[in-house]
Amino acid sequence: MTGQAKLPRGFRAAGYTCGIKVSGKSDLSLFVADGPSSAAGVFTTNRVCGAPVVVSRRRVPSGSARAVIINSGNSNAATGDPGIADAERMTAELALSIGCRPEDVLVCSTGVIGVPLPMPLLLSGIPQAAAKLASDDQSLLDAATAMMTTDTVPKLTSVDLSLSGGSVRIAGVCKGAAMIAPNMATMLGVVLTDALLTPAQCTELLRAGVEDTFNCISVDGHMSTSDTVLLLASGASGVNPGADDLAELAAGIRQVCQHLATSIIRDAEGADHFITVDVAGIVTRSAARQMARAIADSALVKTAITGGDPNWGRIVSAAGYSGVGFDPAYLSLRINGTEVYRAGTPAIFDAAVVSRGLKSDREVHLELTLHGGPESGSCSARFWTSDLTAEYVRLNSEYTT
Amino acid sequence: MTGQAKLPRGFRAAGYTCGIKVSGKSDLSLFVADGPSSAAGVFTTNRVCGAPVVVSRRRVPSGSARAVIINSGNSNAATGDPGIADAERMTAELALSIGCRPEDVLVCSTGVIGVPLPMPLLLSGIPQAAAKLASDDQSLLDAATAMMTTDTVPKLTSVDLSLSGGSVRIAGVCKGAAMIAPNMATMLGVVLTDALLTPAQCTELLRAGVEDTFNCISVDGHMSTSDTVLLLASGASGVNPGADDLAELAAGIRQVCQHLATSIIRDAEGADHFITVDVAGIVTRSAARQMARAIADSALVKTAITGGDPNWGRIVSAAGYSGVGFDPAYLSLRINGTEVYRAGTPAIFDAAVVSRGLKSDREVHLELTLHGGPESGSCSARFWTSDLTAEYVRLNSEYTT
Repeated sequence: MTGQAKLPRGFRAAGYTCGIKVSGKSDLSLFVADGPSSAAGVFTTNRVCGAPVVVSRRRVPSGSARAVIINSGNSNAATGDPGIADAERMTAELALSIGCRPEDVLVCSTGVIGVPLPMPLLLSGIPQAAAKLASDDQSLLDAATAMMTTDTVPKLTSVDLSLSGGSVRIAGVCKGAAMIAPNMATMLGVVLTDALLTPAQCTELLRAGVEDTFNCISVDGHMSTSDTVLLLASGASGVNPGADDLAELAAGIRQVCQHLATSIIRDAEGADHFITVDVAGIVTRSAARQMARAIADSALVKTAITGGDPNWGRIVSAAGYSGVGFDPAYLSLRINGTEVYRAGTPAIFDAAVVSRGLKSDREVHLELTLHGGPESGSCSARFWTSDLTAEYVRLNSEYTT
Repeated sequence: MTGQAKLPRGFRAAGYTCGIKVSGKSDLSLFVADGPSSAAGVFTTNRVCGAPVVVSRRRVPSGSARAVIINSGNSNAATGDPGIADAERMTAELALSIGCRPEDVLVCSTGVIGVPLPMPLLLSGIPQAAAKLASDDQSLLDAATAMMTTDTVPKLTSVDLSLSGGSVRIAGVCKGAAMIAPNMATMLGVVLTDALLTPAQCTELLRAGVEDTFNCISVDGHMSTSDTVLLLASGASGVNPGADDLAELAAGIRQVCQHLATSIIRDAEGADHFITVDVAGIVTRSAARQMARAIADSALVKTAITGGDPNWGRIVSAAGYSGVGFDPAYLSLRINGTEVYRAGTPAIFDAAVVSRGLKSDREVHLELTLHGGPESGSCSARFWTSDLTAEYVRLNSEYTT
């Protein structure tokens, strides 16, 4: 879907080059609704968070927003009170250009940390970016592109839904959790829809949408200080969804979020493999997720996959230390469909065949299933991750000061 | 201290080559007390654990043991019920050789997983190893050497203490948590003392000894299925420690455990740096440890140190997602003594100087201190870890099936 995304009605977008990045690439994204929109947001739970997170988190509870302004190249994090003033000033400048209150503008930043924003560049760039705002799909692509830091491709998608009241569109853009010093990993996402939604519906739909998608990806387990996903609903379709429509809308938002979240993993730094971890037969969904995450975060599991090694011991032992109770005598594991471990003992399989598959395919599927025992249940969870390569280490150990 | 360790009175040791390892290196270690000894053990909490862990964990509560038998080259893990029978048979064979009950022998294994032990080699080797048992220091070194898997040096140490009742000795050996496919990481440690101790005292001293040492090291956060530390007290010194002596003994055991635990980190696979993480000003000790561990486990912190990059953002943000509450406005960070972050904002420092230090020194000291705020306290914790290098990835992604 990437590159083919369409902007929902009632929104304009723009990408612009203020000159923040040494590379000269675009660095300012605007998403602007034609009128007041319902809004919701989810933010990093890191105790150390960037100034834009502080500002946006304060504004989201109003349930309404007109615009989102995002700069890349500087995360405005660890910048103290002056950083908060700068974030507020960005929103005020855009508010001036589009004619709304500063409080109606949400703000995100991604890039180098601990360095004050180059405000003269931003303050002269914002009105010029606002002058470029347009409701065409190219503008959405431009905005997605201007959010990129170490991403190699812009990440965006959209879906059209036919609801009982009419058709609505959901579009989403994001930038990846790839990290390269001295940038912080930042996952930023913006989801736009022209459905007519209350703020409470926005909050519910966004939480449900990120739960099994953005919250189920991991590159290296390092939670950023700036992670933010925002949802704005313009209502410009005039479609006021009923109960059935809401379920369909929820599925659509989830689909958009899943596309964006997995595109981050596919673009992970230095990664050779896209790994899907499925855990089933667990007593609660959160326990299943906890186990899937322990596997996805294991450096030894990741390096085994890098090397094309069907090393089930590393996967099973990661489940074993996940903190989730189970009896190994009921545990089985499949790697790309081949059972390699069954009922607590090694299964008989052709390791060379499984290894060849791991080496030739970019996609890897790990399925861990608890088939019984006193601590088993009917819950499952899916997590996505990438492998760990020497290239990842090289990228992340490059000296930058 | 390595290589200079002295065996306490009342013990004999031996290292032997049964032929389990393709390399032909020694693979069987024996530690035998002259008579019944008080014993204690701590084991992996991994739900998936090796057969020897099952057997030893069942026997330790008796509080008494005569011997420890350890083989390297095969971990006897994921081997089902036959593996448990094999572990029991190893202990029975040694019991026959030294004249005790099988139940008085503890057992550990480390090496390849999912493969049955080569019992014929072991059963013929055990009596021959027992015939080599001797009470000299060379035998202790031989036993420490026969435990090694990917360790590059044997790990052993001893201390002599002058207690009010006389002198006692504590000796310890261990093998490292280095991992190489298809071996499981296994940390095995044996601590021997000639002090006269009750089983309850052994348990208390061992728990206290491992708490801030073996439980505060991390190479890659992957908990093994076989981790075991055992303490045997022969009483051969005749010294029955009083309350003051017990405190001194506890300090001695902690010192031995710390030497062994840090020697594992110094010998970590592919590591260029030995990293000490100190966290202070936290409300509880366990919270301080949780924060120190989050920093020690972060791949981004490790790769920054690999690259000689004083990237304080990665360290502070790892603290931020550790789950421990704090106000960043009161947080400061020193890297090798230089303050790089203060009160939530970057400190002014010469990054090139700090970087040169990181590049030239093998030792790295990270000190994170909370200086106030509603969630601060007076507790601290120390964690040791290694950095993450391309060599680590290479070693752990090598294909082995």
